[in-house]
Amino acid sequence: MKLEGIYAPIPTPFDENGSLYLEGLTSNFVHWLGSPLDGIVAGGSNGEWPLLTFDERVALFGACADLSRGKLKVVAGVHCPSTKESLELGLEAARAGCDAVLVLPPHYYKGQNSGEALRAYFTTLADSIGIPVVLYNMPANTGFNLEPDIVAALSSHPNIIGIKDSSGDIVQIATLCRDTPEGFGVFAGSGSFFLPSIAVGCSGGTMGVANLFADACADILVNFRKGDTDRARSLQLGLIGINQAVTKRFGVPGLKAAMDHAGFYGGPVRAPLLPAEEKVRVEIGRIYDQFRSFYKGVSL
Amino acid sequence: MKLEGIYAPIPTPFDENGSLYLEGLTSNFVHWLGSPLDGIVAGGSNGEWPLLTFDERVALFGACADLSRGKLKVVAGVHCPSTKESLELGLEAARAGCDAVLVLPPHYYKGQNSGEALRAYFTTLADSIGIPVVLYNMPANTGFNLEPDIVAALSSHPNIIGIKDSSGDIVQIATLCRDTPEGFGVFAGSGSFFLPSIAVGCSGGTMGVANLFADACADILVNFRKGDTDRARSLQLGLIGINQAVTKRFGVPGLKAAMDHAGFYGGPVRAPLLPAEEKVRVEIGRIYDQFRSFYKGVSL
Amino acid sequence: MKLEGIYAPIPTPFDENGSLYLEGLTSNFVHWLGSPLDGIVAGGSNGEWPLLTFDERVALFGACADLSRGKLKVVAGVHCPSTKESLELGLEAARAGCDAVLVLPPHYYKGQNSGEALRAYFTTLADSIGIPVVLYNMPANTGFNLEPDIVAALSSHPNIIGIKDSSGDIVQIATLCRDTPEGFGVFAGSGSFFLPSIAVGCSGGTMGVANLFADACADILVNFRKGDTDRARSLQLGLIGINQAVTKRFGVPGLKAAMDHAGFYGGPVRAPLLPAEEKVRVEIGRIYDQFRSFYKGVSL
Amino acid sequence: MKLEGIYAPIPTPFDENGSLYLEGLTSNFVHWLGSPLDGIVAGGSNGEWPLLTFDERVALFGACADLSRGKLKVVAGVHCPSTKESLELGLEAARAGCDAVLVLPPHYYKGQNSGEALRAYFTTLADSIGIPVVLYNMPANTGFNLEPDIVAALSSHPNIIGIKDSSGDIVQIATLCRDTPEGFGVFAGSGSFFLPSIAVGCSGGTMGVANLFADACADILVNFRKGDTDRARSLQLGLIGINQAVTKRFGVPGLKAAMDHAGFYGGPVRAPLLPAEEKVRVEIGRIYDQFRSFYKGVSL
Repeated sequence: MKLEGIYAPIPTPFDENGSLYLEGLTSNFVHWLGSPLDGIVAGGSNGEWPLLTFDERVALFGACADLSRGKLKVVAGVHCPSTKESLELGLEAARAGCDAVLVLPPHYYKGQNSGEALRAYFTTLADSIGIPVVLYNMPANTGFNLEPDIVAALSSHPNIIGIKDSSGDIVQIATLCRDTPEGFGVFAGSGSFFLPSIAVGCSGGTMGVANLFADACADILVNFRKGDTDRARSLQLGLIGINQAVTKRFGVPGLKAAMDHAGFYGGPVRAPLLPAEEKVRVEIGRIYDQFRSFYKGVSL
Repeated sequence: MKLEGIYAPIPTPFDENGSLYLEGLTSNFVHWLGSPLDGIVAGGSNGEWPLLTFDERVALFGACADLSRGKLKVVAGVHCPSTKESLELGLEAARAGCDAVLVLPPHYYKGQNSGEALRAYFTTLADSIGIPVVLYNMPANTGFNLEPDIVAALSSHPNIIGIKDSSGDIVQIATLCRDTPEGFGVFAGSGSFFLPSIAVGCSGGTMGVANLFADACADILVNFRKGDTDRARSLQLGLIGINQAVTKRFGVPGLKAAMDHAGFYGGPVRAPLLPAEEKVRVEIGRIYDQFRSFYKGVSL
Repeated sequence: MKLEGIYAPIPTPFDENGSLYLEGLTSNFVHWLGSPLDGIVAGGSNGEWPLLTFDERVALFGACADLSRGKLKVVAGVHCPSTKESLELGLEAARAGCDAVLVLPPHYYKGQNSGEALRAYFTTLADSIGIPVVLYNMPANTGFNLEPDIVAALSSHPNIIGIKDSSGDIVQIATLCRDTPEGFGVFAGSGSFFLPSIAVGCSGGTMGVANLFADACADILVNFRKGDTDRARSLQLGLIGINQAVTKRFGVPGLKAAMDHAGFYGGPVRAPLLPAEEKVRVEIGRIYDQFRSFYKGVSL
Repeated sequence: MKLEGIYAPIPTPFDENGSLYLEGLTSNFVHWLGSPLDGIVAGGSNGEWPLLTFDERVALFGACADLSRGKLKVVAGVHCPSTKESLELGLEAARAGCDAVLVLPPHYYKGQNSGEALRAYFTTLADSIGIPVVLYNMPANTGFNLEPDIVAALSSHPNIIGIKDSSGDIVQIATLCRDTPEGFGVFAGSGSFFLPSIAVGCSGGTMGVANLFADACADILVNFRKGDTDRARSLQLGLIGINQAVTKRFGVPGLKAAMDHAGFYGGPVRAPLLPAEEKVRVEIGRIYDQFRSFYKGVSL
């Protein structure tokens, strides 16, 4: 498997009682299968992984593997605080038919995250889970940055195939592109810096906004590759507002509100997350509509 | 229950296979029951809570409640990423006979931690768990600071009885002492700043070093209260080295190495933590012995 | 000279045209000479040093040396970006009759501040300026922290007599007290953490609020030393609000507004600083009056 | 004047006694005039502006204006801590024949940098200095980030023509490109993120490495614009190592060492900066040669 193209980090649907609601997933997959998406991330940060039980994560992986029907790659977020539990969940993801796993660095005992500890953690997983491992750097949530020299060292492991870097540090992303082998996929971890990331060599990205506008994301990639950098730039600048609304500004509650607005199944979030307030939902709807109009305009 | 005095945030013992090893706890309690400790924190940061299963945490709480024989207060760390799971674990802690629970703020979705979200989280727990709640601010691990104005607002809840603040921000700690009601306990969250914390009004502290030198910690408190500030200061300055060695410098592996050195049961840590290397163990032994000599000297 | 007691980091008076107004200084010294102050810092952060010319700084130093009449120690802030200019200004401060100089670490080229560079900088000054050097750590303004190991190394220089640490990191301050020789003065750099600092061994402090309430600051020190830690704590907690108002909350404009309110000469600030707005002046007046009433109450 | 193309932030030459050495400048201009450079920044961060006197800065501006012979735009760094002094220096830069001035935000009293204070500062300068103003965001040195909303507000001033952003925050840079008017120039402030910056709409950049390899920098821009994004990317990845060596890794001492190595006049730095050690000079020489070979290789 090569990590490449446009991936959506999908939200996990719950019903009104807060239970996992796989029917919501089914209807969303109808949209995604009809889009230019290359894959999805199930049970990542946008999927509220810390708020799911082990069993729910396994059920989610299975459902995604089924629903993707081999047309979308399924990357399962299997990070847990302990090595043992991450390993067990990774094995379940493989068993469920996922294509790869996504793994954060350990991040509670930040002071103990030596290069040696990080290498031991990721290598243990990559050695034992039967499917490929994708590293995941997400300092805004973890409070810890996975340094490029450690990623470069890990990139020689045959079963570690790429990294999703959500740091937004573009020199770091460029350094990863420079210092990892040819087939190793470096992914932009946000739609807000997708174009500059592919400009320095990323093979794709996973971005919140791709749940809603996979076509616009793919458009950036296609146009950049064919040398229409003006159109790629215009789309990228247009995309920042809606991407930030469904990620750093309003978080998962914002993403789910946008999903509801756009005709997907969004639904409730789990506590301690609070649902988006009405005025936030209105603001998100406005930003969504504005981008849709803009995109329709430039696509004529 | 009033939060007051010297608490040890105890490590969780594992056997050589990495399983919970409650016999190790039993022998450690012999030491602690013979010391001037007022209480312990079970399943806190030093107790590797993120690396324990739900069931192990419950078993640990029950064992601690039994072993303390009513002579040591037992505060159970019940933080989980989801409100639901924290609540369930809190109820188990109450059922197991613990005296109070210790709860971190949610910290993965940092951007969604509005005052409203934090109040909802802590209030839900405090309303429903039958035993008192102690707030826990630990930014070095969580990457998130619990601001004093939110703590002040929460301090009026009848079932929220105190806070353990490990931030080391002494103005923040002083502000907490100033802005919370009389009976609300503000605890220094580290032995490295215990004396300055009680100088501004803390009622005690929970500190890694109290696992090993509860007597020296109590000595600081007693001497400060009787006005022998010179002796209190001398002990505090002496204590920093050994406290840092078993916390921020070498982490839980360092604490367990020091426990082994001192005749307690320390034992292995769980991955992704790595065991202390031999040279670190030697260094910790040296620092431990140095403080013990110093303390013996000043106690004559 | 031994660095000890209560120092006020005085503001630099300007007239309505923005020119140095030494008459304002004269009237302020009447207050200060009648207070329990031990010394003043002239041309420090509160003295708007970056906004003064070299010649104005020299004139200010001379005026302060004269006005202090040997009853207040005068420490001159002589930090400049280049070593050469700091040295020249330091020599002028000595010539003007100041008792010591206060020097920040270089802080524009933060990445080049190796231990070697810092040692070279401070040693050059301490070797050549005829009067003692006091180090000055002020990370909130400089964006750079002077680490304790470097201060400890510098503390053996016979002409470096102390440090003013405004970091608020109480473990760092305690470490400085532990690792520097007996006569080396460690000063709390803010009235918001004065008591905890003397609890760990500081010999005094320089604090914005001492411009206005030197008596209350001295009261903390006296009461702590005689073992009345309850009164010391009560005063410290009371002092935080007014100290923060004239430092981190409202800055030098806030300090000057409070001076005006209290019957000192405050006067205008220099651009790019903006004068305190009317509503801020009212708020500062309120906080000032509140503390004065409180202090009068506890002093009866 | 439109801010566009490749600018070199030139170092300020000193002789062995540390005096300004304009002859060194003359020989360097021979190189630069023969290169694809569009302009230079005189007296910026790489020009050791904090270590120059007012008069030296004026002399430097005059020399650069003369030496550029109308073929290179000259942007003069006129930032001073006080508004008054920045204004006076800006007027001197205009008088000396410079094309524009570059101005940092005030940054010592960070807590007082409200939007209102920043707008007052920059507007005062832009209203009164006869030549255009370029804003300069350099958080690594100043410890302060100039937020995009403030820049957007300032961009409507007819005499504020652009910004050099050295933050490396690519989403911020993209946001600036999105939110400022058509003719407003957004410049990448480092050669390490030049390509991603032009990908999101920057009109050029000023980068340390352009002192040495203006041709390679221009090559990135030309190739990106003509749609050869592969070659642009390859050059960008190659450039990071040498650019970091002469900026964040080894600072101005590193840049001057590289200048010496490359046949320019580099010469000594001013204290408190320390000269590059011999082993650093060797390392820089190696990195320089490596990039030169690489660049020669890809240019055949």
